[in-house]
Amino acid sequence: MGFEKIKRSEDYSKWYNNIVVNADLAEHSDVRGCMVIKPYGYAIWEKMQQQLDRMFKETGHSNAYFPLFVPKSLFEAEEKNAEGFAKECAVVTHYRLKSDPENKGKLITDPEAKLDEELIVRPTSEAIIWNTYKNWIQSYRDLPILINQWANVVRWEMRTRLFLRTTEFLWQEGHTAHATKNEAIEESEKMLDVYAEFAENYLAIPVIKGVKTPSERFAGAEETYCIEGMMQDGKALQMGTSHFLGQNFAKAFDVKFANKEGKIEHVWATSWGVSTRLMGALIMAHSDDDGLVLPPKLAPIQVVIVPVYKGESELQSISNHVIPIVEQLKNENIYVKYDNRDTQRSGWKFAEYELKGVPLRIVVGPRDIQNNSVEIVRRDTKEKIVVKNENLIQTVVSLLNQIQENIYNKAKEFQNQNIIKTDTWENFVSVIENGGFAYAHWDASPETEEKIKELTKATIRCIPLDNMLENGNCIYSNSPSKQRVLFAKAY
Amino acid sequence: MGFEKIKRSEDYSKWYNNIVVNADLAEHSDVRGCMVIKPYGYAIWEKMQQQLDRMFKETGHSNAYFPLFVPKSLFEAEEKNAEGFAKECAVVTHYRLKSDPENKGKLITDPEAKLDEELIVRPTSEAIIWNTYKNWIQSYRDLPILINQWANVVRWEMRTRLFLRTTEFLWQEGHTAHATKNEAIEESEKMLDVYAEFAENYLAIPVIKGVKTPSERFAGAEETYCIEGMMQDGKALQMGTSHFLGQNFAKAFDVKFANKEGKIEHVWATSWGVSTRLMGALIMAHSDDDGLVLPPKLAPIQVVIVPVYKGESELQSISNHVIPIVEQLKNENIYVKYDNRDTQRSGWKFAEYELKGVPLRIVVGPRDIQNNSVEIVRRDTKEKIVVKNENLIQTVVSLLNQIQENIYNKAKEFQNQNIIKTDTWENFVSVIENGGFAYAHWDASPETEEKIKELTKATIRCIPLDNMLENGNCIYSNSPSKQRVLFAKAY
Repeated sequence: MGFEKIKRSEDYSKWYNNIVVNADLAEHSDVRGCMVIKPYGYAIWEKMQQQLDRMFKETGHSNAYFPLFVPKSLFEAEEKNAEGFAKECAVVTHYRLKSDPENKGKLITDPEAKLDEELIVRPTSEAIIWNTYKNWIQSYRDLPILINQWANVVRWEMRTRLFLRTTEFLWQEGHTAHATKNEAIEESEKMLDVYAEFAENYLAIPVIKGVKTPSERFAGAEETYCIEGMMQDGKALQMGTSHFLGQNFAKAFDVKFANKEGKIEHVWATSWGVSTRLMGALIMAHSDDDGLVLPPKLAPIQVVIVPVYKGESELQSISNHVIPIVEQLKNENIYVKYDNRDTQRSGWKFAEYELKGVPLRIVVGPRDIQNNSVEIVRRDTKEKIVVKNENLIQTVVSLLNQIQENIYNKAKEFQNQNIIKTDTWENFVSVIENGGFAYAHWDASPETEEKIKELTKATIRCIPLDNMLENGNCIYSNSPSKQRVLFAKAY
Repeated sequence: MGFEKIKRSEDYSKWYNNIVVNADLAEHSDVRGCMVIKPYGYAIWEKMQQQLDRMFKETGHSNAYFPLFVPKSLFEAEEKNAEGFAKECAVVTHYRLKSDPENKGKLITDPEAKLDEELIVRPTSEAIIWNTYKNWIQSYRDLPILINQWANVVRWEMRTRLFLRTTEFLWQEGHTAHATKNEAIEESEKMLDVYAEFAENYLAIPVIKGVKTPSERFAGAEETYCIEGMMQDGKALQMGTSHFLGQNFAKAFDVKFANKEGKIEHVWATSWGVSTRLMGALIMAHSDDDGLVLPPKLAPIQVVIVPVYKGESELQSISNHVIPIVEQLKNENIYVKYDNRDTQRSGWKFAEYELKGVPLRIVVGPRDIQNNSVEIVRRDTKEKIVVKNENLIQTVVSLLNQIQENIYNKAKEFQNQNIIKTDTWENFVSVIENGGFAYAHWDASPETEEKIKELTKATIRCIPLDNMLENGNCIYSNSPSKQRVLFAKAY
């Protein structure tokens, strides 16, 4: 196997990339800034999608699909939103190619097929969706509209990293319309809770729920809620956002409704999204120097069975033993793979499934058959457990639950240890330098926020929702402050 | 309700559009040629996706994701493919907007952000995928590669129709790589079988499997297999294609492998796809003048229960009666909706669910409770059946199966009646004019094919796979012919 391990302690960034590429999750394509999501990586993303989709539907949302392209005149209607995304827009200007008269077999853009109005490849869909909602909403009876879309979006990026920051990425974007301000705020908070629940129960990543400062808000939002996770280098990763958009888009697109009293009002909006970035979070939160560590609930292969044998007849007797076990595990809805390929040695397979983060490896050799037992190896702790056949199924089920819990607890403990209350500038700088979240007083001014960012590269990740008010002095300006906020360097 | 019925016999095309829009399936957007797929339409598409995805996985395929954009130099590498799609390409030329200095609040394409190389929005992904496969394939051990992608694609269309022909559409595209020609041909035929099975068992549309004539082949294919369905106006709809691509893409992108003997060879390829066009097929094959008729296997709501009542207390006693029934149906994995809204009359609801094609409507009034029975109305035949409560669940299950079968049989009978052997030009012209498939001799020349198209607008839909060889004379040229082919006007 061509996998050369890189230690997290040596080069965290290279370690990350090395795992993404070697565990067959994704790779850079020849299209600037765009990635190829490989089958194994995509299988994990599909499992995320399934759970999220179920959670969206359980909270009353339906899926729909809106156009990839946004005509420039619609794009610029909500000015703040347009301004926020203008620098990252891929622009379609022509709709035809033609043969290059000077270069046989080559094509050129046909200058006669220039569009009257440029089309923007959606960086986000508020504009196109609110332009559509306009025709769907007349009365309070048409509200709420609770729609989600699974889609690709494009934001031109100069520096890209697989999953974390790519020019094209996959995501879901919820767009809802409401009759009242309160209902819209409740919706944005509800969806933040859905994201937090997904992060903690499926990704096994503890998150902090909070709101962004005005300067970190989504362009066009009145309030941006977020969940922030801590990676193993102590840096923050924004894992999902939910925006209360006020009436900004309703005003930009003139979306009004008659309320129960017959009065005409503008509609209230939210939007919320998570993306393939979550793949990056998953990898960075749990993996170790040997490769990926997957939470069992999202692992495409939860259990791999590897035979250890000499010669065809030994393999045959092992297979006779293993095949009923495979069936039993499948009946318990466990994703199991029996890797009886004779083209690879068992040692190679052990390393391969370790690299790919398969939660449990079951090893079966001739002696195990004699002893009526198998050896199970946990990916998270590397612990080896010898189990009698009669206890195998219940042990596997229980171990998968334990692993899910264990990797969450480990990440939670790490997070607890690395969120540090700081009350001096020196301490603040050192927390940020060493990797960690500094929980510090801030004078609530954008100038201070900007200055701290300049000096330390730390941004305010969020003002935690469960924050206690506490009088103090700003870590930087020493001006009075009413509460602490979370600072960190971020992906 | 604002739904004005249009009869098929009056204007088939308007009838179609009227149903698509009023049954809340889709609508035109303000983006030229692009549609919005509304929640009810998207729910049907999701059900199609689920089944197809399961079938692809059961035949050994995995999903992955490749970039939306194709750099021009990659796009033009396979010349026939490039030539075939060049006229339909949306071209990204810039990656940034900026404020319009002459028009406050407006944006213009930033001329300084012109791309060195244009990006084509994928009309199909062979180029980008084979450019990627190049790095994945060295030896026969790396083969086969069996990958599918669910994606959006863009083909610039001048005349669009909802679902049938839109500039952007959703589809799946399988792209496989093989060590031998035979294996690749087998794969293309296997996937055609998957499509045919899906069409017949889920969409309830009988299809004819065949191969395209050279002039109708996919650009870059050696052979294009297809399934063709017949719509209620006798016109054909190509419902899916599977292409044997030979070594064309492997040669264009220099994808070679070492075979078991160590010899270096080019890889063999297939690709295959179905799209949101299938929504159009579904609508046109089964629906009637009252609206959509959905096959139960793809209906988002299979059974709707409508209470008929006067006053709150009657509704309450009906609800007490209905809620256990809803639970029982859900336990049988039946998608049931109890519509107890008091904002709409029951007559309105009847028409609404008829329009939306819900296979079974259960009506419950006070007398039904007394009689310990309910009334069931079939969407396909409009038949009313009074059922005792104790037989309700089994009757519903059985009726759903009957409807699935009945609408297939009806479509099959219609197809049988409208595939007509023609042996004279007059008869041929009249079959095509009246709407139907003409099964006629053809001299196998592209010139004749073209001439017939000019004169009658009929194209050769396919040469059926189960064709018998039969000597005869070409319907147009009178030249010798070895077999009949299927001609029809098509969507």
